[in-house]
Amino acid sequence: MADERFFTRTGPYTLRQLAAIGGAALGAEADADRELHDVAPLESAGPHDLGFLDNPRYLRALADSRVGACVLRPGHADRAPPGMALLLSRQPYRSYALMAQAFYPTPPVQPEIHPTAVVDASAQIGPDCEVGPGAVIAALAEVGARCRIGANAVIGRAVRLGADCMIGAGTVVSHCLMGDRVILHPGVRVGQDGFGFAPDRERHVKVPQIGRVIIEDDVEIGANSTVDRGAGPDTVIGRGSQIDNLVHIGHNVRLGRGCILAGQVGISGSTQLGDYAVVGGQAGFAGHLRIGVGATIAAKSGVTKDVPEGETWGGFPAVPIREFRRQSALLLRAGRGKGSIDD
Amino acid sequence: MADERFFTRTGPYTLRQLAAIGGAALGAEADADRELHDVAPLESAGPHDLGFLDNPRYLRALADSRVGACVLRPGHADRAPPGMALLLSRQPYRSYALMAQAFYPTPPVQPEIHPTAVVDASAQIGPDCEVGPGAVIAALAEVGARCRIGANAVIGRAVRLGADCMIGAGTVVSHCLMGDRVILHPGVRVGQDGFGFAPDRERHVKVPQIGRVIIEDDVEIGANSTVDRGAGPDTVIGRGSQIDNLVHIGHNVRLGRGCILAGQVGISGSTQLGDYAVVGGQAGFAGHLRIGVGATIAAKSGVTKDVPEGETWGGFPAVPIREFRRQSALLLRAGRGKGSIDD
Amino acid sequence: MADERFFTRTGPYTLRQLAAIGGAALGAEADADRELHDVAPLESAGPHDLGFLDNPRYLRALADSRVGACVLRPGHADRAPPGMALLLSRQPYRSYALMAQAFYPTPPVQPEIHPTAVVDASAQIGPDCEVGPGAVIAALAEVGARCRIGANAVIGRAVRLGADCMIGAGTVVSHCLMGDRVILHPGVRVGQDGFGFAPDRERHVKVPQIGRVIIEDDVEIGANSTVDRGAGPDTVIGRGSQIDNLVHIGHNVRLGRGCILAGQVGISGSTQLGDYAVVGGQAGFAGHLRIGVGATIAAKSGVTKDVPEGETWGGFPAVPIREFRRQSALLLRAGRGKGSIDD
Repeated sequence: MADERFFTRTGPYTLRQLAAIGGAALGAEADADRELHDVAPLESAGPHDLGFLDNPRYLRALADSRVGACVLRPGHADRAPPGMALLLSRQPYRSYALMAQAFYPTPPVQPEIHPTAVVDASAQIGPDCEVGPGAVIAALAEVGARCRIGANAVIGRAVRLGADCMIGAGTVVSHCLMGDRVILHPGVRVGQDGFGFAPDRERHVKVPQIGRVIIEDDVEIGANSTVDRGAGPDTVIGRGSQIDNLVHIGHNVRLGRGCILAGQVGISGSTQLGDYAVVGGQAGFAGHLRIGVGATIAAKSGVTKDVPEGETWGGFPAVPIREFRRQSALLLRAGRGKGSIDD
Repeated sequence: MADERFFTRTGPYTLRQLAAIGGAALGAEADADRELHDVAPLESAGPHDLGFLDNPRYLRALADSRVGACVLRPGHADRAPPGMALLLSRQPYRSYALMAQAFYPTPPVQPEIHPTAVVDASAQIGPDCEVGPGAVIAALAEVGARCRIGANAVIGRAVRLGADCMIGAGTVVSHCLMGDRVILHPGVRVGQDGFGFAPDRERHVKVPQIGRVIIEDDVEIGANSTVDRGAGPDTVIGRGSQIDNLVHIGHNVRLGRGCILAGQVGISGSTQLGDYAVVGGQAGFAGHLRIGVGATIAAKSGVTKDVPEGETWGGFPAVPIREFRRQSALLLRAGRGKGSIDD
Repeated sequence: MADERFFTRTGPYTLRQLAAIGGAALGAEADADRELHDVAPLESAGPHDLGFLDNPRYLRALADSRVGACVLRPGHADRAPPGMALLLSRQPYRSYALMAQAFYPTPPVQPEIHPTAVVDASAQIGPDCEVGPGAVIAALAEVGARCRIGANAVIGRAVRLGADCMIGAGTVVSHCLMGDRVILHPGVRVGQDGFGFAPDRERHVKVPQIGRVIIEDDVEIGANSTVDRGAGPDTVIGRGSQIDNLVHIGHNVRLGRGCILAGQVGISGSTQLGDYAVVGGQAGFAGHLRIGVGATIAAKSGVTKDVPEGETWGGFPAVPIREFRRQSALLLRAGRGKGSIDD
């Protein structure tokens, strides 16, 4: 059970309610009126808990579990112990996530502008916003309804936030237009100058960075990540993209919809990622590349060329993943002292 | 055209004025009295815009452009369409940068110490400074003329800033002496303890870090980068160095003049980079190294040895770039399933 | 000598006092009543300074030094010049660290809650705490005795800090229980949501992150590092662990006691490091791994498998270090254009 100091649980919910929330079907043995009180991992769950099985690696945990009900794929139903209540879904993790959101909803915004917040008279704050202590909202900024601006966050001049955005404590945003339901975790930096200058031994000459950052709806950006504004064109983070902590996004970069970037990824200026691209941790991209729709980049890769749609690449310089696997196999054999690469 | 909510354009400027600003010469077909109103990329520029050509890759864009005037090398002049006004420079990007600064100057400092800023009575604030809401300037700090201290930034005890420095919102500086025209973007951390301790299984023992950070004139440090203070000697960032976002600089590191560090670079303690060293993104350096004047380190390299003056190195462990290219060629061949390295 | 603007030195100390402080023995030629006034590197030390020798690389500096007294291993005593006062220790760097702490103690906490700090009425602040300007301490938080909360730091709802913790300026902590003597440098982010969602092309679905961050006694975390809270289990940083700058620690990660993580390391969700694990800079870990007690991971490694207790691994994918060395040797030979790997 989650620590009550930090989390507020709702419920209980009947299996019928949970099935509806998560888009799941009740299994044959499930009593639709049975109430569950919490979520828990299969190993530690008790008869009042909801659990889930997605990765088949955990089938053994399923067999031994005392969970009250389990969300799983129809194809795994026969692996559950007799009598276990099942909630059947083709996307069990997604269904479980929706049910878990019901038990642990995002804490409601507490509409208040804290008296120590500094909100410029020309800024427009929508209804029911929560603006924390020491937060600063500069001139001409527009904040949509029900936004939460964390303590000591800074929203720069003329920045626009849509509705239901959550800006973490200490986060700084400038030169940015943001959609609805955007989450910026603590310490995110959006909108500062890109790394643009004409190199010169006497003195590097800064090139004015006159683009913006456009963050579309439902984007989430992790703690201490940085998104530079465009040099002339805009930097764009496409709808629903998920960005982890300590990620660096250079000027003019464009992410499509639903991209996923793991921690400490770096994207150099003007590179574009197509919709649904997925990038593993600590990968880096040279500038001016085109990464295709649905491409996957392995962790720690260094991408120096365009990557076609739907392909998976890895290594440095990054190559199609089957080539990277052969490269790794060569190195692994060499490491074990085994003959030549012709083996 | 830049979004007027965020950027203020000046002008128009005549070609004569622009040539003087950028150190360029007027081409034969250029009307010195013609006025331009804005800057724009060659592809989208119109007859009132200034554009530039540096990279020959964009020669085709030049041929098709409707730009009002183009800054380019004398050697590219004959590739421009007949009648296009030209501004000739051997450093076209540098010339363009200066002209663009004229159109889009850095917004002037708004001299005011915000009433919510906390400035210690013993701190000295120079004339015409802008100190934002919630900014903190501790005892004995000295801030030169015309500095801008962003909202919620924290300037520690006895820190010294020269004139015309810009400290981003939420930035924290301690144990630091800074020259003129230094720019620290939001979230930069300067002057905290280096990673110094005597390892011990009972309890690691911290070694007092009693050096400072010296930041020379015209340095720029990107968002959320960190610069630890020296352990005994100082950490030094040489004049005019340009540091991108999320860079880590350990204690006692010394950067020479005009160094360029791309995003997410990490430099371990006591390593020294000579003047004008250039380092690609995500590269890392072991401690106690000497990197020569004008050396270039490729992105993602892991540098474990000294690098001689003027050389370009890459890979991990980093080697001269021609050796790294051969290493990559070996791997690429192996990845394609092609024979041995003797091919 | 350290810059008096930033550092306060105490002393002088007699060699007898220093030997007792550092657990060292007086050498034959050392006058126990001799007083030393400062610490300094062997090369620049004078007769009133304390120095140390740990790495034999610096034996030449010892021979030439004018240092007042030197901490070193008994086995190095005969390499010191005749007449030099010696302080003998089997852990000379540790002994020196303790003596240096005597000369340069951590500045005492200045008990005061700054009038601009925002401390919720329900928060409990222990005796003799220093809460800086603009710091925010939310409802139900508990802060132990003698803590220092930096300017503009934010301590979230119900967070608990033990005694003698130091929270840097601009640092943000939520959903966290912390032991005694914890140091979080400026810009650290603790307790935000982990990177947990069910991927879905329509819209990625967030999974509530209902665990905490547990930081045990004597942990130190470097500037701008991030520690996400657990998804259900807790994220745990074991007693005495030392974490450098810009490190990313994912949800559910567990570090044992006394771990050492260099700059820009990234650890994916649910990976566990045993006690005393040591990780070089920019290394990364896949999720769900077990790294054994006392394991060492080389800088820039990409760890994709469990690492046994006490072993040293390196490379990507990481392998035992002797294998990684053979891999590197292969590449280095290939880079020099020398024959096949059968050479």
